[in-house]
Amino acid sequence: MDRISDGRREATEIRLRAYPPDILREEDFELHRAPVPRSLEAGELLLANSWLSLDASARLRMRESDSPYMPRITLGGPISGFALGRVLSSRRSGFAEGDLVLHSSGWRTHAVIRADETGWRGPHRIVEEPGMSEAAYLTALGPAGLTAYVGMVKLLDPRPGDVIFVSAAGGGIGSLAVQLAKIAGARVVASAGSAEKRDLVLGLGADVALDRRVPDLSAALRTAAPGGIHGYFDCVGGPELEAAIDNARPGARIVMCGTVSNYDTQSGSLPRNLFAIVAKELSVKGYLTRSYAELLPTVQAEMAKLVRDGRLRDRVTILKGIDSVPRAFVSLFRGEHVGKLLIQL
Amino acid sequence: MDRISDGRREATEIRLRAYPPDILREEDFELHRAPVPRSLEAGELLLANSWLSLDASARLRMRESDSPYMPRITLGGPISGFALGRVLSSRRSGFAEGDLVLHSSGWRTHAVIRADETGWRGPHRIVEEPGMSEAAYLTALGPAGLTAYVGMVKLLDPRPGDVIFVSAAGGGIGSLAVQLAKIAGARVVASAGSAEKRDLVLGLGADVALDRRVPDLSAALRTAAPGGIHGYFDCVGGPELEAAIDNARPGARIVMCGTVSNYDTQSGSLPRNLFAIVAKELSVKGYLTRSYAELLPTVQAEMAKLVRDGRLRDRVTILKGIDSVPRAFVSLFRGEHVGKLLIQL
Repeated sequence: MDRISDGRREATEIRLRAYPPDILREEDFELHRAPVPRSLEAGELLLANSWLSLDASARLRMRESDSPYMPRITLGGPISGFALGRVLSSRRSGFAEGDLVLHSSGWRTHAVIRADETGWRGPHRIVEEPGMSEAAYLTALGPAGLTAYVGMVKLLDPRPGDVIFVSAAGGGIGSLAVQLAKIAGARVVASAGSAEKRDLVLGLGADVALDRRVPDLSAALRTAAPGGIHGYFDCVGGPELEAAIDNARPGARIVMCGTVSNYDTQSGSLPRNLFAIVAKELSVKGYLTRSYAELLPTVQAEMAKLVRDGRLRDRVTILKGIDSVPRAFVSLFRGEHVGKLLIQL
Repeated sequence: MDRISDGRREATEIRLRAYPPDILREEDFELHRAPVPRSLEAGELLLANSWLSLDASARLRMRESDSPYMPRITLGGPISGFALGRVLSSRRSGFAEGDLVLHSSGWRTHAVIRADETGWRGPHRIVEEPGMSEAAYLTALGPAGLTAYVGMVKLLDPRPGDVIFVSAAGGGIGSLAVQLAKIAGARVVASAGSAEKRDLVLGLGADVALDRRVPDLSAALRTAAPGGIHGYFDCVGGPELEAAIDNARPGARIVMCGTVSNYDTQSGSLPRNLFAIVAKELSVKGYLTRSYAELLPTVQAEMAKLVRDGRLRDRVTILKGIDSVPRAFVSLFRGEHVGKLLIQL
């Protein structure tokens, strides 16, 4: 084992205290402090995290019973989530001290990446594009960007003039999806939960920004898109999905990258209008970003070009310090933040 | 106008008395008798109906407000639905006295087909295949057969060894879908609502027949298909769709030709497990048979061959006389009949 000499002595991680039955509270988390690991096994990496991504999907793993799709988070251990870190010490080939790394050992200040951790969840050594901020590798050039790209460009693939509906458009993925749809020449109707987010979304080029909290979102969408929508980019499920199905043109496509409206409670408003899937011959396609992992380098290069050309903007809310994580994560489900929610350490 | 001489003097049609708010009752219908039409305009056909098809989807048109997908049925007028009739008199080219015709002026003993009625809803002159019963043109060789063929063969397209789930398998479409899946070499798990239907379905080759009324259909499907299902043929929605989503293998396909579980009330149990569409990257595809109308002759020929070879069997419940229609249609939603429900006039 190699000895590591590191300026900082203490590492902090966020742990889940108990499995919250429904609405998540700040008290469900606790901070755990321990010395920074001082030695590595062969194949391991020690990272000092600089940015953490807080993603709603982590809520799905904070449950007593294993989901059929995702292993639950272990109580008394660290929580996983995408993060960027710099290599403090490496016993893994291809990674050297100082490298910027995208990985999934977030929710902590320091991470030891085990030898058996590979694939989509990383570690990925970042080839830094000129002119990009470090944080961009968690947003437009990172998992959020890949999710938006796959859903909007690869699966929905709008034609110029198509009307595309994007929900959660003020969020990290939705705000990118809106811009990708505009770049493709679509007319974009977006929905978001606050006036601030709607302003943001209009600033990003959306043609209409709807308030997702109106009593009849379907009617609002009908007014915004009287001829119906050609496609819908869904991170939300719930009333937005119902409104999209109501307003879909025959043959419309719906891509689903999440159903955040029911992550907390696993229930909620679900589409009453299933028959429209038949009657309008809709296609609904769910996808996981990790299945498109091989596209990450291509998408990073394409997104970097769009950012440099001023055609795509990253919208982020940045909170500072590991101590801010519990409150920030809980607030994610109240839709309080604009853009992608990042923690700077 | 031509004068028509017809043996029968009286025509009977079924009318809707009022729009039923939820559960349909026999009293919602009335019989209306009138003289058989005695003259035709240019382009018109007079038919004596011999067989009527009763299809659950007609329920969707028995509503006060127009559905966005289907015009409502007019009170005080005839109800439409597929039927077979013989030409009594023709002022339309391509149709001669005595021809067998598939059309959508069912729910009545005699039909005048107007000059502007064309396309999927007919009239279609039937080229009678050797050895087929007349009724087969409303079942395996008719709209039901085309629906089953498109959903199972064209859209699901199972590979040998795939596990395919078929709901409403004791019904007119499901019973054909089960057989088409077996012919493709799939392992078929079927669900149906009565012991009689399950016996029928097993007799048609299904490997397992589940009782759709068990408290936990999803668990029953898991036991029947421990490795999950590759595809699901859905006419039902509701708990069956939820069970299919629960038990879908990653990348599984779901085709939807109906959501009969909520035709009566437009509500009911709907999938709680939407996130699985994302997590398992499922594809859900709704379709309308009429969009595949051009396949009808091909499918008729293929189905006729399968029937003649003894590889496909038509299952029907036949009731007699126009007076039996109201009770028969209402009973459709209680799942009382095995196979396709036909009325012989």
